[in-house]
Amino acid sequence: MTSKRTPRRREIAVVTDLLGANDEIAAQNAELLRRHGVFTVNMMSSPGAGKTTLLEQTLKHFRGRAGTAVIEGDICGTYDVDRLKGLGAQLVQINTSRFGGECHLEANMIRNAVAKLDLGKVKLLFIENVGNLVCPAEFNLGEAAKVAVLSVTEGDDKPAKYPLMFRICDLLVLSKTDLIPHTNFSAKKFHAHVKRINPRLGVVEASAVSGEGMSAWYEWLARRIPRGPRK
Amino acid sequence: MTSKRTPRRREIAVVTDLLGANDEIAAQNAELLRRHGVFTVNMMSSPGAGKTTLLEQTLKHFRGRAGTAVIEGDICGTYDVDRLKGLGAQLVQINTSRFGGECHLEANMIRNAVAKLDLGKVKLLFIENVGNLVCPAEFNLGEAAKVAVLSVTEGDDKPAKYPLMFRICDLLVLSKTDLIPHTNFSAKKFHAHVKRINPRLGVVEASAVSGEGMSAWYEWLARRIPRGPRK
Repeated sequence: MTSKRTPRRREIAVVTDLLGANDEIAAQNAELLRRHGVFTVNMMSSPGAGKTTLLEQTLKHFRGRAGTAVIEGDICGTYDVDRLKGLGAQLVQINTSRFGGECHLEANMIRNAVAKLDLGKVKLLFIENVGNLVCPAEFNLGEAAKVAVLSVTEGDDKPAKYPLMFRICDLLVLSKTDLIPHTNFSAKKFHAHVKRINPRLGVVEASAVSGEGMSAWYEWLARRIPRGPRK
Repeated sequence: MTSKRTPRRREIAVVTDLLGANDEIAAQNAELLRRHGVFTVNMMSSPGAGKTTLLEQTLKHFRGRAGTAVIEGDICGTYDVDRLKGLGAQLVQINTSRFGGECHLEANMIRNAVAKLDLGKVKLLFIENVGNLVCPAEFNLGEAAKVAVLSVTEGDDKPAKYPLMFRICDLLVLSKTDLIPHTNFSAKKFHAHVKRINPRLGVVEASAVSGEGMSAWYEWLARRIPRGPRK
C-alpha cells in the first residue's frame, strides 16, 4: 500500500507540513523574544494540575522585581486570565475554539498574541498551554524553556505513561505536594520513573497553596532572566 | 484563499475523511457488541482522574454477577492492565504508540481489540481511553455510553473549560470525593457549570478509595446490562 492516495499517507504528509510550518514560526517567535530580552516559559500539564494557581503566586512574587506577561491558552472562556488580573502582568487570552477547538497551542497563535504585548516591559513571559498532557508536547511555540507541571493527585506513574511530555521538558514542577499525605503517591516510584524517562530532568516539588518549595521555582526562573536594562 | 491546495483546506478534508471512516467502523463495532448482548462503556478523563481505580473496584463488584472485559488504551506500557489482572475480567491492551502515539482511541483500534475477546462471556465491556479531556471526545468507538470521569482535585471549573467532553457524555462520575475537604472544590460552582453546559447530565459523586457513592455507579451500570442468557 504505497499509493499516495491512501488516507494514512495523506495524513502523514499533511501533519509533516504543519509541524514544519509550525517550527518555522516558532523560530521567528524565539528570535523576536530573545532580541527583546524576554525569557519565555511554555507551561504544560493535564487539566487541573495547578498551572494557574502556580502562576498566581509567581506573578505576585515577581511583581516589582521583573516585568511579567501571560499568554493564556484555553479552548474557550477567560476563566484563567480572570484569575490573573490585578497581579501586574500583561495578559493575553487565546481561545483555540477560534482555531477549531485545538487541544494545544501552536506557534502562529503565539505570534498573534505576542504582537499584543509591550515587550519592552517584559522580562518573564509565561505561556499557559491548554490542559493536556499529550498533544502540547509536540508543538514548539518559540519558548526558551518547556516546563511540565504534574500534580501529586494524578499519580506517581504518569511520567512512565506519558513519556513524551517528560522527555521534552526542561523542568518538571511536581505540584500540590500539600496533598501527598491524603493520597497513595509514592515519591520513590515517581523519581524512579522520571529517572528512567529523562535522567537529567530537574524536578521542583512545590505547593502553591502552602508555599512549600516555591522558592526553588522562583530561583529557577530568576536565574534565567536575561541581563539587560531593568524592566 | 479557496484553492484546494492550501494546507488548511487539505487538513480539513483529511480530518473529515478520517472522522467519517471512524464513524463507519464505530457503527460496525456497536452492531457487533449489541448483537452479543454486551453493554459497552467508553471511559474518558484527564490523566490521573482515577479511571483505573474506579475500574478495579467495579470489576470486583461485578465478579460473579456479570461477565466483564476491559480494553485498556494507553500510549505505551501495560501499567493499567497489570493493575486489573486477577479480577475476573478479560483484558486487552491497546498501545497507541503502534499508531503513531495517538492521544485518543479510534474505532479501528477497538475493532481489533474486540476481535480478541470471547464476547459470549461478556455482559459489560469497559474501554479505558487515553488520559485526555479533549481529543477522545471527538471519536466514537461503538460504545453504548460515554462516561466522563472528573476528579475533584482538577477543580470545579473543568466542565466550563472543556465543554465538549461534558456535552457528549451520558454520565459524569465525579471521582476522589474523599479529597474534597483538602481542596477548594466548590460543589455549588461545579453543579452550576454542569447545568449550564449539559442540563440533563446525570452526575454520580463517588470515591473508589472510601467506597462512598460507588453503589450509584454500580446501579447505573447494572440497569443497562442487556437481558438475555446469563453470562
